[in-house]
Amino acid sequence: MASTTGQTIKCKAAVAWEAGKPLVIEEVEVAPPQAMEVRVKILFTSLCHTDVYFWEAKGQTPVFPRILGHEAAGIVESVGEGVTDLQPGDHVLPVFTGECKECDHCKSEESNMCSLLRIDPDRGVMIGDGKARFSINGKPIYHFLGTSTFSEYTVVHVGCLAKINPLAPLETVCVLSCGISTGFGATVNVAKPKKGSSVAVFGLGAVGLAAAEGARVSGASRIIGVDLNSDRFEQAKKFGVTEFVNPKDYDRPVQEVIAEMTGGGVDRSVECTGNINAMISAFECVHDGWGVAVLVGVPHKDDVFKTSPVNFLCERTLKGTFYGNYKPRSDIPGVVEKYMNKEMELEKFITHEVPFSEINKAFDLMLRGEGLRCLIRMEH
Amino acid sequence: MASTTGQTIKCKAAVAWEAGKPLVIEEVEVAPPQAMEVRVKILFTSLCHTDVYFWEAKGQTPVFPRILGHEAAGIVESVGEGVTDLQPGDHVLPVFTGECKECDHCKSEESNMCSLLRIDPDRGVMIGDGKARFSINGKPIYHFLGTSTFSEYTVVHVGCLAKINPLAPLETVCVLSCGISTGFGATVNVAKPKKGSSVAVFGLGAVGLAAAEGARVSGASRIIGVDLNSDRFEQAKKFGVTEFVNPKDYDRPVQEVIAEMTGGGVDRSVECTGNINAMISAFECVHDGWGVAVLVGVPHKDDVFKTSPVNFLCERTLKGTFYGNYKPRSDIPGVVEKYMNKEMELEKFITHEVPFSEINKAFDLMLRGEGLRCLIRMEH
Ligand SMILES: NC(=O)c1ccc[n+]([C@@H]2O[C@H](COP(=O)([O-])OP(=O)(O)OC[C@H]3O[C@@H](n4cnc5c(N)ncnc54)[C@H](O)[C@@H]3O)[C@@H](O)[C@H]2O)c1
Ligand SMILES: NC(=O)c1ccc[n+]([C@@H]2O[C@H](COP(=O)([O-])OP(=O)(O)OC[C@H]3O[C@@H](n4cnc5c(N)ncnc54)[C@H](O)[C@@H]3O)[C@@H](O)[C@H]2O)c1
Ligand SMILES: [Zn+2]
Ligand SMILES: [Zn+2]
Ligand SMILES: [Zn+2]
Ligand SMILES: [Zn+2]
Repeated sequence: MASTTGQTIKCKAAVAWEAGKPLVIEEVEVAPPQAMEVRVKILFTSLCHTDVYFWEAKGQTPVFPRILGHEAAGIVESVGEGVTDLQPGDHVLPVFTGECKECDHCKSEESNMCSLLRIDPDRGVMIGDGKARFSINGKPIYHFLGTSTFSEYTVVHVGCLAKINPLAPLETVCVLSCGISTGFGATVNVAKPKKGSSVAVFGLGAVGLAAAEGARVSGASRIIGVDLNSDRFEQAKKFGVTEFVNPKDYDRPVQEVIAEMTGGGVDRSVECTGNINAMISAFECVHDGWGVAVLVGVPHKDDVFKTSPVNFLCERTLKGTFYGNYKPRSDIPGVVEKYMNKEMELEKFITHEVPFSEINKAFDLMLRGEGLRCLIRMEH
Repeated sequence: MASTTGQTIKCKAAVAWEAGKPLVIEEVEVAPPQAMEVRVKILFTSLCHTDVYFWEAKGQTPVFPRILGHEAAGIVESVGEGVTDLQPGDHVLPVFTGECKECDHCKSEESNMCSLLRIDPDRGVMIGDGKARFSINGKPIYHFLGTSTFSEYTVVHVGCLAKINPLAPLETVCVLSCGISTGFGATVNVAKPKKGSSVAVFGLGAVGLAAAEGARVSGASRIIGVDLNSDRFEQAKKFGVTEFVNPKDYDRPVQEVIAEMTGGGVDRSVECTGNINAMISAFECVHDGWGVAVLVGVPHKDDVFKTSPVNFLCERTLKGTFYGNYKPRSDIPGVVEKYMNKEMELEKFITHEVPFSEINKAFDLMLRGEGLRCLIRMEH
């Protein structure tokens, strides 16, 4: 490993040249890590819906050419000046939001929205010097979410890397780097259902099923899955979902259907769709007096959340979360241990696998709504 | 006392014959308490904004003739069948929402929204037999919020009476029967500010100042009072309010003004206005990552709460509360003890006093926005 330290590395990366066009595997140059940066050899990456949103760039700022990817697992190749927490050979998960350990958010017990390293999808460069570390023939190729994991090597701020147990299988814990931690944490850290309670999960993609897994692990007795796509229901049974509701099957609002099923509403709900109507239903379907709803899905830019204020006065609570309220460096190593101790299951989220050269197949699967996570195996 | 037990009592009551017309002191007949009911001799009552709303009956169902009043203190005169918790001579505070101790809400640690005795402003009769206990020449006079305290004697369901320390001065603890508990509880039970934190209070009437008192008692270091009426500011200093903002003084939204004053937003906010714009501002002015906003004010029937869902995703929480989340029978005796132990101040909320015969003066004061609570002294 030492042979490449301080030098530019040439390697393969999947470049998104234009919005919505298939990625192209190119040879890119990856500059050495600068102060507080780390160069990581990516071994596995997987596709999350957020990659697809920014690749389509509908209603999002287009930043191209760009290397997408933010759910991954890898090994530290070399570290830049000032990096003391990590060293070459460490196993890491890159995370789209960081933890500087110094700002008000990092010091707060409640927040994981680091002021320095908070997600910024419009930024295509490193925060240190405002430049890209990727280039082709001297022309910069932009970063994505500070991670850009669709590359054999990438450069990441040290605050966006969780150092994990080297015994953990990277091809499995890879999915904890975004979607699964997001959904699982939304339930266990934010909704916090009690043993024996009822939980509704809106959206049964990987994030929603991870929320259901969190409800199962918390001992919820009823887990009601809500999705517009009934094909999702069979699979969801493996994640502890006990009942299913497709809003299309009813001519009244789904919140009313759920209130009837549960004698007034569920104890907790977690919204994992990104659809504004589902967000409103997820709030209005919780029980008065004690119900808590948690929003996870990323809405469209101009969406407006509308409800009667009386729904709040009747003692319902509405919250939102970001990466399941986990602080990447402090908390994610512990989530990996939870998997190692068999307190949570991860294998069932990985329904497909492709070699890096066929990465566009992962996009096709997600666009067709097939499966949950497609693992992309790098071919060093 | 025993002499009136089981008999109809003739006494004075202030009857609202029509919406918005001055109350008229009349001689009414008060029937004996039926099963699970208690007849209470009212010694003090005070006027709350909610009485004024239902007296004006703008956008509310008009129920007349009616005996209003719900903030009061009195002594048990006699009890109906099945009442074992109370006996003649007990000191009590009637409360507009009840606690049956048997429903899901009463059994939940979190809720105080009793299914049986929850507030129902449209109901003008007792829940037991659907009849009124008040009459004039055999014609029923309707109840209000199950309390109707603008009468020398009233009949209340046992679940709506808090039995308190007989040493507590009734002319002072009277205000704990609605507004002050509502505001104080909204802060200490729901917003729960930490020591040293910042709290914004929207609306500096009695409820808002009780919320400020809760923040002061919790050790908040900055208490920002927001009101459209700058006359409220001088008085508010006595309640620990440290800074004032009148939204009319700015040409940008007050949530932006507060975010600038506090480096990103307050830690907690409590809305005590009933105005929908204030509700939205109160939510949007809390800090991302950890801010919690609590709605208390009673909105207009058709008001809609609107905000961007991104405000939730950035880890802000929105809640609402009802009577400060206190369970009347279980919790209010302890709040009275807090006052007795000098852990909270009540005298400063009572700015005016009138004899019962001049009750309409209390309405004039509230309509002019003068003072906080006007104590009405019964003249038995
Ligand atoms: N807050 C965060 O930190 C964070 C992190 C990762 C992903 N996300 C977001 O979480 C959401 C889910 O991600 P995913 O990867 O599981 O996506 P996905 O596309 O695999 O799953 C979404 C599911 O929601 C269903 N759905 C859509 N509209 C619906 C509606 N109105 N009612 C019911 N179901 C509906 C779809 O049929 C689909 O099955 C996305 O919006 C994603 O951007 C948020
Ligand atoms: N949830 C409950 O259990 C409960 C119990 C009692 C009272 N309430 C409600 O609490 C609210 C306050 O009661 P109160 O007796 O203190 O009333 P109040 O009229 O004495 O005080 C309300 C204050 O809010 C101010 N205000 C109005 N609109 C505003 C705005 N847009 N921005 C800033 N300030 C504004 C007014 O100037 C006034 O000073 C009322 O809506 C009342 O119905 C609720
Ligand atoms: Zn993701
Ligand atoms: Zn930070
Ligand atoms: Zn009141
Ligand atoms: Zn009850």
